[in-house]
Amino acid sequence: MFSNRISNVPKSFIREILKVSADPTIISFAGGLPNRDLFPIENIKAATNKVFDVVGPDVLQYSNSEGYIGLRKMIAKRYKSFYSLDVPVENILITNGSQQGLDLLGKIFLNEGDSVAIEEPGYLGAIQAFGVYKADFQPVPVSDGGMDVSALKTVLKTNSPKMIYTVPNFQNPSGITYTNENRKEVADVLKGSGVYLVEDNPYAELRFSGTNKKSFMEFLPDHTILLGTVSKTIVPSFRLGWIVAPNKVMEKLLIAKQAADLHTNYFCQRIVDQFLNDYSLDEHIEKIKTMYSSKKQTMVEAIKEYFPENIQFTDPEGGMFLWVTLPEGISSMDLFDLALKKNVAFVPGDPFYTNNTQRKDCINTFRLNYTNSDTATIKKGIKLLSECIREML
Amino acid sequence: MFSNRISNVPKSFIREILKVSADPTIISFAGGLPNRDLFPIENIKAATNKVFDVVGPDVLQYSNSEGYIGLRKMIAKRYKSFYSLDVPVENILITNGSQQGLDLLGKIFLNEGDSVAIEEPGYLGAIQAFGVYKADFQPVPVSDGGMDVSALKTVLKTNSPKMIYTVPNFQNPSGITYTNENRKEVADVLKGSGVYLVEDNPYAELRFSGTNKKSFMEFLPDHTILLGTVSKTIVPSFRLGWIVAPNKVMEKLLIAKQAADLHTNYFCQRIVDQFLNDYSLDEHIEKIKTMYSSKKQTMVEAIKEYFPENIQFTDPEGGMFLWVTLPEGISSMDLFDLALKKNVAFVPGDPFYTNNTQRKDCINTFRLNYTNSDTATIKKGIKLLSECIREML
Repeated sequence: MFSNRISNVPKSFIREILKVSADPTIISFAGGLPNRDLFPIENIKAATNKVFDVVGPDVLQYSNSEGYIGLRKMIAKRYKSFYSLDVPVENILITNGSQQGLDLLGKIFLNEGDSVAIEEPGYLGAIQAFGVYKADFQPVPVSDGGMDVSALKTVLKTNSPKMIYTVPNFQNPSGITYTNENRKEVADVLKGSGVYLVEDNPYAELRFSGTNKKSFMEFLPDHTILLGTVSKTIVPSFRLGWIVAPNKVMEKLLIAKQAADLHTNYFCQRIVDQFLNDYSLDEHIEKIKTMYSSKKQTMVEAIKEYFPENIQFTDPEGGMFLWVTLPEGISSMDLFDLALKKNVAFVPGDPFYTNNTQRKDCINTFRLNYTNSDTATIKKGIKLLSECIREML
Repeated sequence: MFSNRISNVPKSFIREILKVSADPTIISFAGGLPNRDLFPIENIKAATNKVFDVVGPDVLQYSNSEGYIGLRKMIAKRYKSFYSLDVPVENILITNGSQQGLDLLGKIFLNEGDSVAIEEPGYLGAIQAFGVYKADFQPVPVSDGGMDVSALKTVLKTNSPKMIYTVPNFQNPSGITYTNENRKEVADVLKGSGVYLVEDNPYAELRFSGTNKKSFMEFLPDHTILLGTVSKTIVPSFRLGWIVAPNKVMEKLLIAKQAADLHTNYFCQRIVDQFLNDYSLDEHIEKIKTMYSSKKQTMVEAIKEYFPENIQFTDPEGGMFLWVTLPEGISSMDLFDLALKKNVAFVPGDPFYTNNTQRKDCINTFRLNYTNSDTATIKKGIKLLSECIREML
């Protein structure tokens, strides 16, 4: 009855986890939500009322598929100030969050069985989106410093992927960041291959320490596709993201966007544009960084204090997640079951690996989110988690 | 480089037409836009501010893929009051306009080459959405009173379609409405076949005269899928629509929705819910009907006055469009070129036929929108158009 593409897709495991962890008695490091206390609600409200008064009824009318030109100009301006990149406005398409960008890329690029190289571990939303188009995933390991370039070479040679998916800054799930040198190496390997590199970049502006890294666009200008979003910096519920792509890709994306939903919510595009015009995004982001940095520090210190010594973990310079590696043979899924009995939740590594991973037998990694719990809760949760780990060891 | 599904999709013809007709010196009957003067902007603004004050920062947070429960309850209530239908809230999924409903249906049902029965002429957005999934369209003629049942039987027997797409009330593009008897006949033909009937229903509430017709859901409860939207009754720019589907279809739709964009704009779901709680939708719709009815009447009278006698046209009891049929052998595309020179635009019939139509050689039909021009402009435009038609005859 159903299409092949949807028949074998299981219910999302992470949705189930999030349902469990919505219970307020549970200490949850599972979610990936920005902290609600930081939403600039008063300024968004003021921007909204200004839009009603200045734009009038037209703000409620249908709009174009490309997105509001004013907002696209603001995005181009931000690429210039943050990355010194010149991104033409015509190459920016507004989407319903960057998740829709992933869906549209799957739609325009992938025939059933086409190969997609992807970071391992990798963002589960990308695995879901490309999975629907029956991608043949070719995982390429990432660790501190970035992507395993020799593994990438092998994938390129043996599988001829159509694209490669990356989150090079404060990666979801691992929190790692590619060095500039690694980016250049990856780009050098891809150069001339025709493969499109997708740089999904929701977290780059949330840097607590260290220096900003370059965009892949600098190293591979003709074959880099950028995904961006306001979900982690301003507001998630508006579902506002964008894709930057070369002309011939943009032409197909626009056709796919129109067939998918005509256009993105125009009212909210105008509100975000107004917000960006009237307030300092930098000042707002400073507040986010201050809070997240402190929470991250608390979690890292608690891990150092309570976890057994043979547990590895990343110490990210920004973003929302860190990544724990248990000793080989210890299953994070078993740990999840045990921890839930003590009212602590996290996301086991499993959904961040594709069905082509080498390590499906016993995944010993898991993701911790630190942006949504207060200091005392972080300490308490990590202590409880450490007890479960010790029990398993 | 690109997927098969997108490689051969041409640029949207109607997008090009709308660009042309955006020129303010052109009298445009081409668009499909609600009249902006009717948008309830003051009430939407008040509802928005109430949402900010009552819901607070949580209205800016991520939300669930199903959609806001309050809004889904309001939609269920409306099905009860308008159609006496009992629609369980669990069977309602909020989408980015009903266009996304079409995309999700294509995604979960269609493998390349799967057959889809569709009204002829039919809504071009559905042709685009299913076309991306490489549907094999099987057109079934519609005319005053509804669908050609014997043609439907033939399609069912020879092509085993997975679904059949209909807009049974004030159809886009033709303005026709299926009678209750025709609906029952269509349902009887489909019963037991396993084919899903899609009832896309943006216009039913905009009825100027005659009596409301029954939903297909009454005749074919297990195999009817309903699409709805607030775009024609409240606000288009929010991109708020919904699908009603049986449990096993809903399960797949939800997976596809999550992979497509996580969820629909939560902020605007809350605003529409607040608007529906605080104001009378019926009173608002009365205003729309009064205006559209009068404009439709003006257009019909102008056509009667100016067009040659051998031109057929529909006289819809509601909605936004009427449909003109020129004598055989007269191309509406040629008429379009001629009319544009006199600064009048409409949509030639071509994009409302699929690549499986029998009549691709010389399409003699076209769509006129009457909701966006004032009385004098309607008269002037129809008079100019009649001159072009006479020139061609």
